[in-house]
Amino acid sequence: MTVDINCDMGESFGAYEIGRDKEVIRYITSANIACGFHASDPNVMKETVRLCHEHCVMVGAHPGYPDLEGFGRRHIDVSPSELINYVIYQVGALRGFSSLFGLSLQHVKMHGALYNDLVNKEDLFFEIITAVKKAFGDIIFFTLATQRTAELRKKWKRKGLRLALEAFPDRNYTNEGELLSRKHAEAVLKDQDAIAERAVIMVKNKGIKSVDGRWIKLDVDTLCIHGDNPESIRAAKKIRAAFEKAGINVCPPADFL
Amino acid sequence: MTVDINCDMGESFGAYEIGRDKEVIRYITSANIACGFHASDPNVMKETVRLCHEHCVMVGAHPGYPDLEGFGRRHIDVSPSELINYVIYQVGALRGFSSLFGLSLQHVKMHGALYNDLVNKEDLFFEIITAVKKAFGDIIFFTLATQRTAELRKKWKRKGLRLALEAFPDRNYTNEGELLSRKHAEAVLKDQDAIAERAVIMVKNKGIKSVDGRWIKLDVDTLCIHGDNPESIRAAKKIRAAFEKAGINVCPPADFL
Amino acid sequence: MTVDINCDMGESFGAYEIGRDKEVIRYITSANIACGFHASDPNVMKETVRLCHEHCVMVGAHPGYPDLEGFGRRHIDVSPSELINYVIYQVGALRGFSSLFGLSLQHVKMHGALYNDLVNKEDLFFEIITAVKKAFGDIIFFTLATQRTAELRKKWKRKGLRLALEAFPDRNYTNEGELLSRKHAEAVLKDQDAIAERAVIMVKNKGIKSVDGRWIKLDVDTLCIHGDNPESIRAAKKIRAAFEKAGINVCPPADFL
Amino acid sequence: MTVDINCDMGESFGAYEIGRDKEVIRYITSANIACGFHASDPNVMKETVRLCHEHCVMVGAHPGYPDLEGFGRRHIDVSPSELINYVIYQVGALRGFSSLFGLSLQHVKMHGALYNDLVNKEDLFFEIITAVKKAFGDIIFFTLATQRTAELRKKWKRKGLRLALEAFPDRNYTNEGELLSRKHAEAVLKDQDAIAERAVIMVKNKGIKSVDGRWIKLDVDTLCIHGDNPESIRAAKKIRAAFEKAGINVCPPADFL
Repeated sequence: MTVDINCDMGESFGAYEIGRDKEVIRYITSANIACGFHASDPNVMKETVRLCHEHCVMVGAHPGYPDLEGFGRRHIDVSPSELINYVIYQVGALRGFSSLFGLSLQHVKMHGALYNDLVNKEDLFFEIITAVKKAFGDIIFFTLATQRTAELRKKWKRKGLRLALEAFPDRNYTNEGELLSRKHAEAVLKDQDAIAERAVIMVKNKGIKSVDGRWIKLDVDTLCIHGDNPESIRAAKKIRAAFEKAGINVCPPADFL
Repeated sequence: MTVDINCDMGESFGAYEIGRDKEVIRYITSANIACGFHASDPNVMKETVRLCHEHCVMVGAHPGYPDLEGFGRRHIDVSPSELINYVIYQVGALRGFSSLFGLSLQHVKMHGALYNDLVNKEDLFFEIITAVKKAFGDIIFFTLATQRTAELRKKWKRKGLRLALEAFPDRNYTNEGELLSRKHAEAVLKDQDAIAERAVIMVKNKGIKSVDGRWIKLDVDTLCIHGDNPESIRAAKKIRAAFEKAGINVCPPADFL
Repeated sequence: MTVDINCDMGESFGAYEIGRDKEVIRYITSANIACGFHASDPNVMKETVRLCHEHCVMVGAHPGYPDLEGFGRRHIDVSPSELINYVIYQVGALRGFSSLFGLSLQHVKMHGALYNDLVNKEDLFFEIITAVKKAFGDIIFFTLATQRTAELRKKWKRKGLRLALEAFPDRNYTNEGELLSRKHAEAVLKDQDAIAERAVIMVKNKGIKSVDGRWIKLDVDTLCIHGDNPESIRAAKKIRAAFEKAGINVCPPADFL
Repeated sequence: MTVDINCDMGESFGAYEIGRDKEVIRYITSANIACGFHASDPNVMKETVRLCHEHCVMVGAHPGYPDLEGFGRRHIDVSPSELINYVIYQVGALRGFSSLFGLSLQHVKMHGALYNDLVNKEDLFFEIITAVKKAFGDIIFFTLATQRTAELRKKWKRKGLRLALEAFPDRNYTNEGELLSRKHAEAVLKDQDAIAERAVIMVKNKGIKSVDGRWIKLDVDTLCIHGDNPESIRAAKKIRAAFEKAGINVCPPADFL
């Protein structure tokens, strides 16, 4: 039993700080680093890559819509070709910093509204992945673990593209296996022990109970955790302790995908 | 006798157009492509790299201060480490697009206020070049051809760094070998035949007369031309005709530096 | 018979120029001045207000989505309260420049995607207008002339709010009285005489034939013309000549609404 | 004995938070509200004006250089006319929100690098103030209290312009009466009792000892306090307590200038 643990990082901007990167990095194997469109700036990017270098954490790009003020959480009506170019630009910019430290780029995970927009747009997602692969070589793409994406992972593997399926131990799921919208009060779990327990179930039992108690099958390659506040750091610590007890290995997806 | 001809390109932005890139590209061997900080956007960058690909013109990055409104012509008091990070970010972003077309990145030329600010800051320039080389490999750096930079080129060559010295056939020079400030009426020449003649002299005689008639020695690797208006396109055409007549080869610096 | 003629103005940005403002201003009575979100900058705004001052043209604000790169043509998912604040911000910024020249602010016309998004969102539009009135006093709001907005104009007049209904003589209309989408080849008319003739019909006969030949009733307060290219300037001139011949007065809506 | 207490406010931006505005507002009489160039956004501006409205705190604009990433702390080489336009734009934008709440705009205080740049540029400062007055009526301008600005305040009063001289109880001063640069370790005082004591001395004795122990004469209209962290909030509380004990009235400058 092996799984990756990822976290969004490098989301500070100039004088503005978000995220306890220096704490949470101790618990993860893959970092999704913001690229200056929805958050971050060139200085934050460099320091975040340096942090990954120091902690032997794999570097990934975390591109978003060009919307610092909205933190990439607002959909923008961009055309497919614009979107591809936005992704190439951001991944390229981060690639510069990873190269500066002699690190390869392991993965790309979209941010916020862009992540959500792409979950059900298979063709557009394929176009983007193909372009990124052409420009940057063999990169792993993170996407939401659903039954549909489990099929997609197989299908695209035959084309030489690598998907890593992602689950969220601190989020409730609908019966359809989607994340319960943040508009619902129960969307995000706060109980750190429950979060750690769910993380173990997700990996061990390959699924999780929906908010209504129905079993949702999940094929999980990577778990997303957070570093925004002291509670999320404590949850991260508990997840790692629970994994050790359950005999779950934590490795970056480059090692097992 | 061999020289490169370069031009700033890809400086349009969204609905805003600047530059007759599709015309001027026929006369150049190196393109300096804006990277979204002082001009350009990801879509323009991709189309400009595509244009270079079609015309077998070498791709270079053209980083500037983060100042779209000022077109990178206004100095901003950024720290050395901020500046290095701004350059890495921009070069990386462009590198993504050149890789998408299977092209290597030949050179980096700073833009506007940043170009001017670095002419006399040898240490900072060295720091930037070193970081760029570390991140992107062996890139050629363009800088103003002066007697000082001619020395620098030799000195840095021994350290494995490549400078290409740049002259401006449509600009008047001071007795000190600097570009006459644009505040003077005679700063920019308009006569296309005179510009072509000066281009030949610069390469053949390795120098040019200053605005006061004094001979300025110049070691020229690359000449900068412009594509802003119909006149500059005609000047470009005349330069190429004059070079053919004078037996001057036009090659990108990757071929001879 | 009286009508206003308006034009989008001040859409240049830094070194980037769009629009022949100095030519088209001679043919209009109301200027919609961009406010720095989808186009323009503080310097362009000041010079555009100055131009209005010199030509006795009424000043209006032309707010858009915060998207310089997309020229405000891309929808952004902003919340109602964010949108109201974006409009207040932009109108306030322009109000500063109009006050500097001792001019009042006559009207507000939304730009691009925001204009389109609001045409069928009566409640949101009402909220925005109410907030603008509270902040800036009695401002006229431009919106697309349709049968629905003709009703709205009456209804809101009783609440003390002023709408001016706008038609586009160079655009084809659908049978439903909406603008034919720019995706269709016939969306925009090019024939300057036809445009001038349609302008007269719109005002005199209070309607226009749709692209399929069906009569569309229109209650027109203001006609939108363009200043992007030499053709649009010639069309403007022809409209004014045709209006003079037809005995149509051209006045800003502040005079007759 | 009367003095104003001011604080920079509304410097959050989108998802990014800076400042404990809701706490510090209880101790001040004038708020300097960021206008979206160096910090803030339209939503933050509206909420900050609302906060001032609820606490009967006077609203002022806090314009800066257009540099969100640098938080307005980096000098940008803008021309005088550009700078005037930047200030008009920002003050106008804030004026929209203050009008929305029926509040007048009491004052303007420049931010960061712009504040510093203007301290010794009397002519440029005069041009800006004159333009702001023309656009927005009789506004008070805050500037650093020095012997030179004390003269300026008198001189400009005769021209109908109002300056308020500002001192910083938590900052050390040089023998020349300037703020000790933040590069020095002793630049900023941390001891909250010392800060409160200095605030009293500044008002009562019209001066303060420099870092070398020399007496600096200061004519103080307004004291700047901070709301960045719990310590600064405690210092604010102590200042108010010390003022009450010393019989110093705290009033906005509109009441006494």
